[in-house]
Amino acid sequence: MTIKAEIISVGTEILLGEILNSDAQIISSALSELGINLYYQTVVGDNYERLSEVLKTALSRSDIIILTGGLGPTYDDITKKTAADALNLRLIEDNDVLKRIQAYFDKKNIEMTPNNKLQALIPQGAKVLQNDWGTAPGIMIEYNKQKIFMLPGPPYECENMLKNRLIPILKEQSDGIIKSKFIRVFGIGESAVEYLLRDIMANAQNPTAAPYAKDGEALVRITAKAADEKEADKLLEPLETEIIKRLGTNVYGINCASLEDQAAELLKKSRLTVSCAESCTGGLLAERLTSISGASNFFPGSIVSYTEEIKNNILKVKKETIETFGVVSLQTAQEMALQASITFKTDIGIGITGYAGPSAPSENDLGHIFVCVYFKKRYSAKELRLIGNRNKVRRLASSWALKLLIDILKENNLPNKIP
Amino acid sequence: MTIKAEIISVGTEILLGEILNSDAQIISSALSELGINLYYQTVVGDNYERLSEVLKTALSRSDIIILTGGLGPTYDDITKKTAADALNLRLIEDNDVLKRIQAYFDKKNIEMTPNNKLQALIPQGAKVLQNDWGTAPGIMIEYNKQKIFMLPGPPYECENMLKNRLIPILKEQSDGIIKSKFIRVFGIGESAVEYLLRDIMANAQNPTAAPYAKDGEALVRITAKAADEKEADKLLEPLETEIIKRLGTNVYGINCASLEDQAAELLKKSRLTVSCAESCTGGLLAERLTSISGASNFFPGSIVSYTEEIKNNILKVKKETIETFGVVSLQTAQEMALQASITFKTDIGIGITGYAGPSAPSENDLGHIFVCVYFKKRYSAKELRLIGNRNKVRRLASSWALKLLIDILKENNLPNKIP
Repeated sequence: MTIKAEIISVGTEILLGEILNSDAQIISSALSELGINLYYQTVVGDNYERLSEVLKTALSRSDIIILTGGLGPTYDDITKKTAADALNLRLIEDNDVLKRIQAYFDKKNIEMTPNNKLQALIPQGAKVLQNDWGTAPGIMIEYNKQKIFMLPGPPYECENMLKNRLIPILKEQSDGIIKSKFIRVFGIGESAVEYLLRDIMANAQNPTAAPYAKDGEALVRITAKAADEKEADKLLEPLETEIIKRLGTNVYGINCASLEDQAAELLKKSRLTVSCAESCTGGLLAERLTSISGASNFFPGSIVSYTEEIKNNILKVKKETIETFGVVSLQTAQEMALQASITFKTDIGIGITGYAGPSAPSENDLGHIFVCVYFKKRYSAKELRLIGNRNKVRRLASSWALKLLIDILKENNLPNKIP
Repeated sequence: MTIKAEIISVGTEILLGEILNSDAQIISSALSELGINLYYQTVVGDNYERLSEVLKTALSRSDIIILTGGLGPTYDDITKKTAADALNLRLIEDNDVLKRIQAYFDKKNIEMTPNNKLQALIPQGAKVLQNDWGTAPGIMIEYNKQKIFMLPGPPYECENMLKNRLIPILKEQSDGIIKSKFIRVFGIGESAVEYLLRDIMANAQNPTAAPYAKDGEALVRITAKAADEKEADKLLEPLETEIIKRLGTNVYGINCASLEDQAAELLKKSRLTVSCAESCTGGLLAERLTSISGASNFFPGSIVSYTEEIKNNILKVKKETIETFGVVSLQTAQEMALQASITFKTDIGIGITGYAGPSAPSENDLGHIFVCVYFKKRYSAKELRLIGNRNKVRRLASSWALKLLIDILKENNLPNKIP
């Protein structure tokens, strides 16, 4: 039998467009990984009548109902009251919950105002899902053969309650386990990935493969259902191998979080150091590399050389190079990479120069960027023609730099000799 | 009479958690500014039965129904068919729309596959909302006294269709205009803003004031309904003045997009130049300053000095300073700011040094950061004790640097003499 789920997000702030409904996304994603079918997401305001109506509809069609938001201490937090009424349950003050809330305030050395007691009201017979990330506990009600969950709305609390309370309960009732792996791809688009894997995606039942696009990158999620982890790994392995074979060096990592995450990991392993000389990306590449904790192990520093004068005076890029080949040229990018490695005494130097827009000498120059990585007296370079607004172009250029760096670190792509 | 609206987002990819429903947020926000009450958002998959059911419910309770997604050329794009059936309308191929789609492919020099013709099917009697940002047109159906809109799902198309097609139609039917202004605040939290403005927010009917929190910043939106723009401005002005009076120099800009946007604006006006020497923020401040188009007018370059050696050798921060006061100290931040201005020959230099975490010499050092701005032989500095993960701490530190810079540029806060 197919388990049918739906999400009801309670919060006028979502209907006013003040916040994105990110809770619904992370819950949806988790349900999808568990193989539970989510058929509806509904957002409704902090309004008793409308929430009652939405809840009644949900109870008529879904096995699992997950409500988020409206569990807090203020008068417009009505989720528990509305749900209890819909199910004909009384709300009862739970002593343990009340103690936990009191302890939370004591620890923070703040006086607890009386309205916080409302958070300790629990529908009769419901299970309390302990909230270690805030004050309002989550709730699970089993009603006939349906399960109604309530999770706090603040994303940090919601995500932790989902991972640590809801998912374990939902897993328990499903047979076996579901395991996913993420194959991260850069250099070809989602549609190209889809094309290359079309027969796999069409035929695969278990494990399955699904491509995604995100921030100019592609991602393939492969998922297996099995009795245990070992069996799941056995199912995933041949599919993973086949996908990597087809996508080639466009695959830059498995289960890593991002290009910078993978680059940092490889830099730490190889004990090599890196520095950058950035023009149009204005510090974005350095920012991404240093966003990884422990970056000081491989990253001593970096320069943003936005003008020709700085490229020339501080970075020591030769005047002739800029005059002969232009400030946006392979040669300038190469010298920037080399000079970064000299200035900061690093094994690897990365240079980026180009026009991120919206202004450029001509329309043809818009998005024209050179990225170059220097390593062991050799260079790996890429000429880019990027389309998009300033921020998108800058992001893609820095992503290409990270991809070239990763390829070198993997020795997939040994740099060419100095020209 | 209150106009009641609801949004129906059609797309299995949202239910799988693959994408955030950002379309719903931008539409919600626009409706809120127009003074139209949005009571529900529903997400439903590309499924005829379930969409029919959701649409039937919407028709029974709302005056305006906005559907997004499912207008494309593939077999699972079922929005038009489902809506036409629900309203008993036939779908008819629209010749003008077909020509536009053909022209779109001709321009891109791609052959149009036959399935693209589906996008030219329009419910009988519906108004076509021309899509200049993609192939699938939008649709408006007037049914009894209700209006049903359909907009394409891709966020870029949806946002442009909303702004250029939907909002003008909705504005037409409302009396007068609604005008909002955004007062941008940094340095105090949303709850402090709420506290300082509590009587205003409680009593204001027209104009209204509402605070928001975003990325560690606060924002107050003031909104007036009036017969015309001039009258709206007259209503807004005294409220704006009062709010600025209460929030003081925490207000850094009106209707600007961000701290970097405001800083860039003031730098361009003043014809002053700026450079940075960043440690823990790793290039983020430079990245934010150069994210603004035209940054080359005020920003020649910048350095990331992640290690003591680089601070010392490249940036020329004195060894004694670091040894005497520590690498994370006011004195080091001051010298970094000064040396940045010397190295890059700029009027203003900004130095940032601190521990972004997760590792630091002691727990007490986590989030301990000094930000310093040098200008005209004087310094403006701030010692920060920030809480949060690495990325949040880095973002806040760079925001503080921008705020100090803005204050100097506004001459709100003249730097102190050299200590």
